[in-house]
Amino acid sequence: MSTPLPPQERVGYAVIGVGELTTAELLPAFALSRFSRLAALVSGDRAETERIAAGYGLTSQDVFTYDQLDELAQRQDIGAVYIVTPNSLHREQTERAAQAGKHVLCEKPMATTVEDAEAMVQACRVAGVKLMIAYRCQYTPQHWQARRLVQEGDLGDIRVMDSVHGQMEDDAGAWRLKRDLAGGGPLPDIGLYCLNTLRFLLGREPQEVSATLYQPQGEERFQEVEESLAWTMRFPGGILASCLTSYNVQTIRYLRVFGKEGWLSMDPAYAYQGLRLEVERASGREELNMDEEDQFTLEIDHFSQCILQNKTPFTPGEEGLQDQRIMAAIYQSAQEQRPVALEQIDGLDVFRGELPDSARSGGEQ
Amino acid sequence: MSTPLPPQERVGYAVIGVGELTTAELLPAFALSRFSRLAALVSGDRAETERIAAGYGLTSQDVFTYDQLDELAQRQDIGAVYIVTPNSLHREQTERAAQAGKHVLCEKPMATTVEDAEAMVQACRVAGVKLMIAYRCQYTPQHWQARRLVQEGDLGDIRVMDSVHGQMEDDAGAWRLKRDLAGGGPLPDIGLYCLNTLRFLLGREPQEVSATLYQPQGEERFQEVEESLAWTMRFPGGILASCLTSYNVQTIRYLRVFGKEGWLSMDPAYAYQGLRLEVERASGREELNMDEEDQFTLEIDHFSQCILQNKTPFTPGEEGLQDQRIMAAIYQSAQEQRPVALEQIDGLDVFRGELPDSARSGGEQ
Amino acid sequence: MSTPLPPQERVGYAVIGVGELTTAELLPAFALSRFSRLAALVSGDRAETERIAAGYGLTSQDVFTYDQLDELAQRQDIGAVYIVTPNSLHREQTERAAQAGKHVLCEKPMATTVEDAEAMVQACRVAGVKLMIAYRCQYTPQHWQARRLVQEGDLGDIRVMDSVHGQMEDDAGAWRLKRDLAGGGPLPDIGLYCLNTLRFLLGREPQEVSATLYQPQGEERFQEVEESLAWTMRFPGGILASCLTSYNVQTIRYLRVFGKEGWLSMDPAYAYQGLRLEVERASGREELNMDEEDQFTLEIDHFSQCILQNKTPFTPGEEGLQDQRIMAAIYQSAQEQRPVALEQIDGLDVFRGELPDSARSGGEQ
Amino acid sequence: MSTPLPPQERVGYAVIGVGELTTAELLPAFALSRFSRLAALVSGDRAETERIAAGYGLTSQDVFTYDQLDELAQRQDIGAVYIVTPNSLHREQTERAAQAGKHVLCEKPMATTVEDAEAMVQACRVAGVKLMIAYRCQYTPQHWQARRLVQEGDLGDIRVMDSVHGQMEDDAGAWRLKRDLAGGGPLPDIGLYCLNTLRFLLGREPQEVSATLYQPQGEERFQEVEESLAWTMRFPGGILASCLTSYNVQTIRYLRVFGKEGWLSMDPAYAYQGLRLEVERASGREELNMDEEDQFTLEIDHFSQCILQNKTPFTPGEEGLQDQRIMAAIYQSAQEQRPVALEQIDGLDVFRGELPDSARSGGEQ
Repeated sequence: MSTPLPPQERVGYAVIGVGELTTAELLPAFALSRFSRLAALVSGDRAETERIAAGYGLTSQDVFTYDQLDELAQRQDIGAVYIVTPNSLHREQTERAAQAGKHVLCEKPMATTVEDAEAMVQACRVAGVKLMIAYRCQYTPQHWQARRLVQEGDLGDIRVMDSVHGQMEDDAGAWRLKRDLAGGGPLPDIGLYCLNTLRFLLGREPQEVSATLYQPQGEERFQEVEESLAWTMRFPGGILASCLTSYNVQTIRYLRVFGKEGWLSMDPAYAYQGLRLEVERASGREELNMDEEDQFTLEIDHFSQCILQNKTPFTPGEEGLQDQRIMAAIYQSAQEQRPVALEQIDGLDVFRGELPDSARSGGEQ
Repeated sequence: MSTPLPPQERVGYAVIGVGELTTAELLPAFALSRFSRLAALVSGDRAETERIAAGYGLTSQDVFTYDQLDELAQRQDIGAVYIVTPNSLHREQTERAAQAGKHVLCEKPMATTVEDAEAMVQACRVAGVKLMIAYRCQYTPQHWQARRLVQEGDLGDIRVMDSVHGQMEDDAGAWRLKRDLAGGGPLPDIGLYCLNTLRFLLGREPQEVSATLYQPQGEERFQEVEESLAWTMRFPGGILASCLTSYNVQTIRYLRVFGKEGWLSMDPAYAYQGLRLEVERASGREELNMDEEDQFTLEIDHFSQCILQNKTPFTPGEEGLQDQRIMAAIYQSAQEQRPVALEQIDGLDVFRGELPDSARSGGEQ
Repeated sequence: MSTPLPPQERVGYAVIGVGELTTAELLPAFALSRFSRLAALVSGDRAETERIAAGYGLTSQDVFTYDQLDELAQRQDIGAVYIVTPNSLHREQTERAAQAGKHVLCEKPMATTVEDAEAMVQACRVAGVKLMIAYRCQYTPQHWQARRLVQEGDLGDIRVMDSVHGQMEDDAGAWRLKRDLAGGGPLPDIGLYCLNTLRFLLGREPQEVSATLYQPQGEERFQEVEESLAWTMRFPGGILASCLTSYNVQTIRYLRVFGKEGWLSMDPAYAYQGLRLEVERASGREELNMDEEDQFTLEIDHFSQCILQNKTPFTPGEEGLQDQRIMAAIYQSAQEQRPVALEQIDGLDVFRGELPDSARSGGEQ
Repeated sequence: MSTPLPPQERVGYAVIGVGELTTAELLPAFALSRFSRLAALVSGDRAETERIAAGYGLTSQDVFTYDQLDELAQRQDIGAVYIVTPNSLHREQTERAAQAGKHVLCEKPMATTVEDAEAMVQACRVAGVKLMIAYRCQYTPQHWQARRLVQEGDLGDIRVMDSVHGQMEDDAGAWRLKRDLAGGGPLPDIGLYCLNTLRFLLGREPQEVSATLYQPQGEERFQEVEESLAWTMRFPGGILASCLTSYNVQTIRYLRVFGKEGWLSMDPAYAYQGLRLEVERASGREELNMDEEDQFTLEIDHFSQCILQNKTPFTPGEEGLQDQRIMAAIYQSAQEQRPVALEQIDGLDVFRGELPDSARSGGEQ
């Protein structure tokens, strides 16, 4: 790996939202980055945030509250924001950041409705800033190695796929369980990994979805959103994909892709670390050795490189918008109890931009 | 394990159908049994079958052709038949064996239609002989250990389940690809393992099924039956199960059961040997050690014990009939593109009989 | 696999010693064999043995006591004996069986002293009968697959090896803890697997051994034999092998072979079932899929084939004698606290005979 | 994890030696630290090092050459050095840093001779600075979890242990293959992990070592040092440990500890990431889930905390000196072909200081 850029040449970021993901993952990720620099924190709690900021060499000048978001426009050392707030806030914060002339890296899911997602794409286009959705898995060598196995024929023609992402959400007061704030239940939060990653592995778009969900009566946690949801996607060439997501099980994250000559398994898939990629052929099962790098660093540095070189990110707003449309169709199918057809999209990687570094590296030790 | 019964006190079997399953698995399984004895072979090729018979100490007197099936009635040393022929022959052979006064152990799937399955149950009832469907997995310690984990609360409430069974069927002339002979494609052959074993693990019956299938146009192998099929089952208590089956992938067989406190995985499940059962909890993932026994021996000896003690087998004809009804609903759902409701069945193990030995053994080393 | 020989054409065996290995493993193994037939049991307890014999279709005529061993000479239907008694009895029983004109398959370790082992080889040579030591691992596809990986260069030049075999022997009265009966502690019983299998994998003989043992003071179990023993072997070409054995740990059985381009692991190795063979190269770790067959059946049928075709078994008495000599050197090294040199043996498989079936099969699914 | 200290309150480090370990591991580790700050780089190549320094926000003022080591005394913002140079330089650099009033964190092996190691301990004592040897494994949660399993009785009494560490050293010109620079071959470089970690797991000191080595004739790489080395250690209570190390195999790193009630395996052990800890009991084999943290960060921050709080590090110079003495005994044993007794050391963790954070955390997810 090449030497990092000197700090003053890197893209400076304001991180909007200082919850656990930010303190446990993103701030350390900035410390490891080569093209990105933490420049400011934006939160609702100035005092606590100033304390955190100090640990990373920031001063109270670098701490903002949400209502000061527009003041970022004055800071020439800040080129981009990274939005890490509840889903329903993404649209407004994106629009304000774009108006302030900052490029926007936004956590997934992009929004809570298709309409909001469309507005975000439009706002960034109008403002002339870049928009990227933080689909971390599309930036890691392990998921790219899986994609190569799928697309380069190592497994033969792909016929069926399977993915499950579940975890326990046991705080009945969590914003993730409020439909207005979250846009749904486990689907937009964790089921989205299955949807987005299977699309990424194939590079193709589903033609039809069919879904079954379960929302228990009288359970406090699931008054607004589903507990569990199973859905099937039909991809071009008759590839069938089964997905399951649930907020009422212990953590589980995996995907498998089955081809005519072999199959691959990631278990865990989607995790921040410890990804395991196995391939089975007639002769045996092989676990591929791959060095791990910090996934958030890879993702953030990709956006910075796109900014520095004026390229479209690999996962721009359009990529997030497509997921938003498919999720809407999944909920519609469950409600109307019938398969729902999707707009037909031809071609490979239709919604994606510049290949990230992980696409080019062999990725193996 | 106790000493075997002397051979003359065991139940004598005529095995009907002498294909690879019989020669590679069933004949060795009889050699290991404690309550069962190979007494005759019934096939379409007398000369070849006599050669095979000699290796197991049988004489030409012990070899019959299919049209001699009724002659078994004269053989007092033969108490039962084991039917291992193409699916569409099961009904007639069951009826003829029952009329000859022989108990019937029939390979899965029981039949190619619900009507045939009902007729088989009726024929055996009328003749006063026992009928058991050869659901091997319901007689193995590993699958029973999984059932205990599911039913005794080790995983917390079960919320979702997932199972895939696929294999490559590349002989376009195989009877398994002919609708009349097989009753369908991968579903009745291998997808049935997912269906039957998930029902067994829960002890409960599905209330609704929803299916999507793919049958490629113009591919010689799949002119009559589906290539791949994905289906979802809704069980009492809102448990959702996703299943996938395909005849166009390399061999894959697994199941996972997800509960509120942990999950279990069998990978491979359903296989003749080498079953692996893992349990994941917050602290880590444990692979359970279990000695392996010959699964076919366990299954056959269960039927013999039921005959010797006049008990209903754990998987009687009614168990097979229930699967036949669910498979019909799965195909109906795929065709009509809507969920299909099933008759509501209350209670545990409604279609099952006497517990097998594997139910009682701890099963662990 | 070809059809079994008709029973009357197979080699008939008298099994000498009816303990747990015989009832749990050998009698079922005979049931699965293709060239061998159980013909008689020899034990110290006629009544119990007659009960067991009945389960396998034998009569009281087929049961002998140890003092009737010479009467086997009258039984023309018995071609061989399989000796499964405490180690110190192997010599006398081999000599008596040989005098009765029977071929001898003897469990490992062959004997308790080098002198006894030499006498056994001599007795069989004089009587013109074959002698084979029951080194089960040398007859299983998995260990042969490992040998191919070692000898055919897949791992590059082999440089170091490692093997551990331990188990808990907690019955202070067991004959395995009496020096006169067993010939030592864990070394001749389970450490012998490490010694014998590493020699088999390389096909070469060690040139020097160096050992350290531990025998606790005042522990009832270990008054006569060692608790644990570590030894190093130096093979031709400077290959170093580290081995460990203990009677005071939970069951552990593995071996690893390290080469310049990769390594292999069997864990468990040596077990009756569930062997796992993995290969690691820079790209990843592969577990090889291999069907399992009954290992005892493979071993017994090899001896029968050698008898029927008048060939030298792959593991004749000379193979066991060589291990006996090396074990004597290991104990000498531990006692004298210095490395002990062994007689230099050039060539591959110097003490071995006809290749078994597992040598020829690819062994993979 | 608590918030990092503001940078100006942390301990500033000068890293001495800017090879691959420094650029690939240590510089990123400083970026993740909470109590430590990268303050200077010391190397033999000023131009290249200034380029690297810029990526981490350092200026040319912060870059020194080896002959400027004494100038560090003037830098009040530098509290410590981290020595990452060839082994034979450790003594002099430690002495010079100590004279400059800087605390010393020194890579393992501490030195190339016992004499040098003693001198280093003495130099730091005289100068009143702390000395810590960078035994990374003693600061990681996974190795601590293994230690708890060993010391808290989960495995029953420990009886035998096994560890192998090998890798390919194929550059015949590498300083690691020069006796004067390295102090030996694979033993002080990678075999030291086995030695040091087994001592750490038990908390006890070996009483006797016995070794066998192989140094091929006429191979350019191994003219000065051994290719492979096997050694046995006898610990208090009769625990036997077998170790193997080699410079002529593909990378392999594992350890196993066998007790009367179960065993544990780390495979890989010693690695920078991807450590796997498994425990086997009669019921099954469990892989423990543990979050990974950057191991170098944990190690460096421990030293900083000891400096800030004036405590003795967990692995002070005395810990390294003890390994140096044992390695000398191992080489002596191999040369004299006899076991070599070591000074008897009673008590637990006799050479160790303040417990690191990893000792206190449960370490599990």
